[in-house]
Amino acid sequence: MTETTENKDLVQEKVQDDNVQAENVSTENDVVEQQEAELTIEEQYEAKLAELQAKLDDEENRHLRLRADFDNMRRRNQLDREAAEKYRAQSLLSDLLPVLDNFERALQVEATSEEAASIVKGIEMVYRSLIEATEKEGLQVIKAEGEPFDPNIHQAVMQEQDSEKETGVILRELQKGYILKDRVLRPSMVSVNE
Amino acid sequence: MTETTENKDLVQEKVQDDNVQAENVSTENDVVEQQEAELTIEEQYEAKLAELQAKLDDEENRHLRLRADFDNMRRRNQLDREAAEKYRAQSLLSDLLPVLDNFERALQVEATSEEAASIVKGIEMVYRSLIEATEKEGLQVIKAEGEPFDPNIHQAVMQEQDSEKETGVILRELQKGYILKDRVLRPSMVSVNE
Repeated sequence: MTETTENKDLVQEKVQDDNVQAENVSTENDVVEQQEAELTIEEQYEAKLAELQAKLDDEENRHLRLRADFDNMRRRNQLDREAAEKYRAQSLLSDLLPVLDNFERALQVEATSEEAASIVKGIEMVYRSLIEATEKEGLQVIKAEGEPFDPNIHQAVMQEQDSEKETGVILRELQKGYILKDRVLRPSMVSVNE
Repeated sequence: MTETTENKDLVQEKVQDDNVQAENVSTENDVVEQQEAELTIEEQYEAKLAELQAKLDDEENRHLRLRADFDNMRRRNQLDREAAEKYRAQSLLSDLLPVLDNFERALQVEATSEEAASIVKGIEMVYRSLIEATEKEGLQVIKAEGEPFDPNIHQAVMQEQDSEKETGVILRELQKGYILKDRVLRPSMVSVNE
């Protein structure tokens, strides 16, 4: 808006200058003055052209910047979308980890009667189908026992000694850890060989 | 845009005024050629100005269009993100529905021994924690028995007769149906009163 207002002002100035010029011509009829006035008009035009060109340059720069912003946003959105898609089940899977823990604890009972054994067998099938559903979404159990301790995926809660095994090797897993694709949802809680 | 067009008109009128003025001068003075050359230069400048102005207008239009595209993309991305976020757990929840079915079937056994009863009780707690995790993500059981049949959320697999109940009311639920927020994941399978 201010730019077009400036345009009008320029035109206004020009009109006033022309009036002056007209007076000069009519009163003195002097060629020198005429030439001077002519130069002034040229200069005015050049100034106006320069001004317009500067605006055009600005506008082109503005366009280039917006174009760059546009492309950046598109790229960022693409990455966001991919990440959101990749880890879409993270929230539910995180909530399922204690369910899996409880499930495993419940299945650790040793059934002595045939009836109890039959129930446990049925429930084990349910547990396996639950594990399959979570694996399909990318949930994986972190390997622990016998692996070298890795602070990125294991949490050492105690140290033990086993002279027959290497230092820094995981001796026992106290709680399962889980990874979603490449993201650790919960590290394994482990005991490490001193 | 209209303002710059008006500007052009203004410049145009001005040129015509100058022509009139120039004619007046030329009849009185001996600078006809000079004036004609001047007019030509002015016309050239005006043409250049008009050309630059047209480019500027184009550039401004181009910018406005890109700006509009930019805003549209931002809005669309926002909506996409919201939808992706809202239904993020849909895939895993869909896979969990048969797990829930099996779980319920396994829990329908009537335990006669104390051992079996204790195991079932433990497993029921696991089941409830699983249900809670799915509810937290927006999974809801579709109401069925006693509700009027709704083809949007119920699937009629048989008809029965109960003269004490209204026609079109659901008499029995044969398989649970589930909704994720406002999206039906699986309709209830029901028996409807004739």
